[in-house]
Amino acid sequence: MSHTAECIFCKIVAGEIPCLKVFEDDAVLAFLDIGPLADGHVLLIPKRHYERLDAMPADAASELMQHLPRLAAAVLAATGADAYNILVNIGPVAGQLVMHVHVHIIPRANGDGLGYRWSAKQYQGDRGKQLAGQIASRLA
Amino acid sequence: MSHTAECIFCKIVAGEIPCLKVFEDDAVLAFLDIGPLADGHVLLIPKRHYERLDAMPADAASELMQHLPRLAAAVLAATGADAYNILVNIGPVAGQLVMHVHVHIIPRANGDGLGYRWSAKQYQGDRGKQLAGQIASRLA
Repeated sequence: MSHTAECIFCKIVAGEIPCLKVFEDDAVLAFLDIGPLADGHVLLIPKRHYERLDAMPADAASELMQHLPRLAAAVLAATGADAYNILVNIGPVAGQLVMHVHVHIIPRANGDGLGYRWSAKQYQGDRGKQLAGQIASRLA
Repeated sequence: MSHTAECIFCKIVAGEIPCLKVFEDDAVLAFLDIGPLADGHVLLIPKRHYERLDAMPADAASELMQHLPRLAAAVLAATGADAYNILVNIGPVAGQLVMHVHVHIIPRANGDGLGYRWSAKQYQGDRGKQLAGQIASRLA
């Protein structure tokens, strides 16, 4: 869970690799994605190395995510965008390329061709109720 | 910013519309998406009506997002998935259909055809530096 020598985001935090920083405090760093999907595409990361969001303590997640409203507002103001997606990919199958938790803020515009692939299903029979119970029991 | 009579999520919070609840406390509610992209697709919402994440106070965002690690872990445990996306759509152009902030937790599997459409660009010349400065100046 600590700094890993091979982690590119840990190297950015350590100042060993440059970034286009937009915000920093003791616990977090925000900078422009070097391969932006849109102008002003920002990454928000915890300075401490966590590979997965589900492995972060609640207070660390809270400390990270509390910055999203202000960051998003600043990105919109600077880019003139009105809409955006917040995206976190956890696990290679979900698109996580850097194994250090990062939150994407992606400004959106009409016809930009971005967005999440949407293909909604429906639960059959009791499947939904069953799943909700299984998830809820782990949170009780 | 308060309860709006027409908001479907406010009605779910008020118990006027049923949901498949997985977690609840004083400030937040989590339930299965009724049109899931994958089994165990969960929505996490603040009980108070906020239309946009960028309009939420930092502490409200924090209060909401602190639950993501535990919720995600429970979804993974219940579904057997190993990967997931966290997604928030803000603004109709970004795919927001219900105008009450909601955080998607979407379990992922190999070959599910989901995920974010990725089409990375590069900043030309000083454009990145300029944008970073414009965003940073609003956060200073």
